[in-house]
Amino acid sequence: MGAVKTPFIVHRRVEFADTDLSGIAHFSRYFIFMETAEHAFRQALGFEVHTEVEGVAIGWPRVHAECDYKSPLRFGDEVAIAVAVSRRGRSSLTFSFELSVEERLVARGELASVCCRVGGESLELVPIPEPLAAAIDALEPRSPA
Amino acid sequence: MGAVKTPFIVHRRVEFADTDLSGIAHFSRYFIFMETAEHAFRQALGFEVHTEVEGVAIGWPRVHAECDYKSPLRFGDEVAIAVAVSRRGRSSLTFSFELSVEERLVARGELASVCCRVGGESLELVPIPEPLAAAIDALEPRSPA
Amino acid sequence: MGAVKTPFIVHRRVEFADTDLSGIAHFSRYFIFMETAEHAFRQALGFEVHTEVEGVAIGWPRVHAECDYKSPLRFGDEVAIAVAVSRRGRSSLTFSFELSVEERLVARGELASVCCRVGGESLELVPIPEPLAAAIDALEPRSPA
Amino acid sequence: MGAVKTPFIVHRRVEFADTDLSGIAHFSRYFIFMETAEHAFRQALGFEVHTEVEGVAIGWPRVHAECDYKSPLRFGDEVAIAVAVSRRGRSSLTFSFELSVEERLVARGELASVCCRVGGESLELVPIPEPLAAAIDALEPRSPA
Repeated sequence: MGAVKTPFIVHRRVEFADTDLSGIAHFSRYFIFMETAEHAFRQALGFEVHTEVEGVAIGWPRVHAECDYKSPLRFGDEVAIAVAVSRRGRSSLTFSFELSVEERLVARGELASVCCRVGGESLELVPIPEPLAAAIDALEPRSPA
Repeated sequence: MGAVKTPFIVHRRVEFADTDLSGIAHFSRYFIFMETAEHAFRQALGFEVHTEVEGVAIGWPRVHAECDYKSPLRFGDEVAIAVAVSRRGRSSLTFSFELSVEERLVARGELASVCCRVGGESLELVPIPEPLAAAIDALEPRSPA
Repeated sequence: MGAVKTPFIVHRRVEFADTDLSGIAHFSRYFIFMETAEHAFRQALGFEVHTEVEGVAIGWPRVHAECDYKSPLRFGDEVAIAVAVSRRGRSSLTFSFELSVEERLVARGELASVCCRVGGESLELVPIPEPLAAAIDALEPRSPA
Repeated sequence: MGAVKTPFIVHRRVEFADTDLSGIAHFSRYFIFMETAEHAFRQALGFEVHTEVEGVAIGWPRVHAECDYKSPLRFGDEVAIAVAVSRRGRSSLTFSFELSVEERLVARGELASVCCRVGGESLELVPIPEPLAAAIDALEPRSPA
């Protein structure tokens, strides 16, 4: 999977419905932008969010989300969302994000999920499927920001 | 089900995230308000949106939605959403809505759904389950607005 | 403005947060998709949603929105949103939309707005600014669908 | 303001549109729930989010948001959102939140904002208005969780 470079960059334009009455994008929408970049990155690595591995349905519930807001996002802004893997555990996976508009830093954030067997009443942690773990470990180390 | 009066009224406060940069609630959010009232009404009639009837999973995909906007909704407004059944077919069900804030008319709208067997690749129309059809038909006729 | 062809086509991918527990895009999100296409179309015609014309702030509150749902939108679908002007009055403007995924028709809808002077306590209808009205009238007549 | 007890508790029901295709509330929606509780708390303290103090328009842009997810929120759940002030600086204010459904802990989170003069091109930090600062400082100390 040497073709996947990090930081992996996804673009998303701020839509009218992303804004609130203060005239800028609502702070909760930054998490949507990050998730969209995470999904595109997972897809580039060859792994959908919801998958079956050897007949077992796998899901990735969130365990943590955070964002530091640096400057506002406005309607029509074309946001560049850089995503990289910041930590990989046996079952957990944390992506880090940097949002910018042209050269202006807009926000930094992080989303952590755990790999679970889904379908039953409760969730059960399972190891990250080997091919995904290998693809992540093969990514170039992230250069210091 | 004589206890369920129509129009059935549900209250929902306009949240900050419902607004957009024009300073008022985004027009798409009115549909959320209507849906929330529809669900409360269905629940009062004893029928969840997703149910099983004799072992068959039933869903209600939307076929039509519309809204006429009469005056703006603002952050913090307490909206009264009046909901009634406007048409019932063999498989289709249309709810009509009137949104107001105190005595001010805000919007009128309509949501139509069809009753389907879900789970397979495609949706298949099925008759509205008899107990729900009976509960709807037993509602008092809606007084002319 | 001969460069603007109608139907004008905008693409938008269905994001994870556009879906609901029934597994498909929530019906209210189709209105976001339509709005995004409308805004891109307005911009191609040279007119922002919020503008000043001869020192007067102009806004476009919605007066009507509707959608007919033909088939579901799923996470990851690349939606083609075709937009055209279906009616232009002195102050009112109605856009019509057709959403499709590859060759599959997904929905048809309509959004109507009125041109208003904004800023005061109440909205006041004003004529559509002449350059926008002219640009709209110069569009090729929409071919029958 | 001795009448305002902390933790201050607000209730919000999970709406259908809060869910995503994994069948539970989307993680970004937790931030909406927290914000709604923060706004109700501010209002109980006598301070709107957007205010004028001595003729100066004051706003509260977010600088940080985070959430730890403990268990899923489902459609129809009645969420109790407990909110308290966790830190107050000269211009900054951090609220902490605990979301639960009946006795089940759902999430813990935090939202930090700074008090700014708004309206110009850039935001300028200003001290928290004295009456709000005093009302916050008069709150009972938060008991250890």
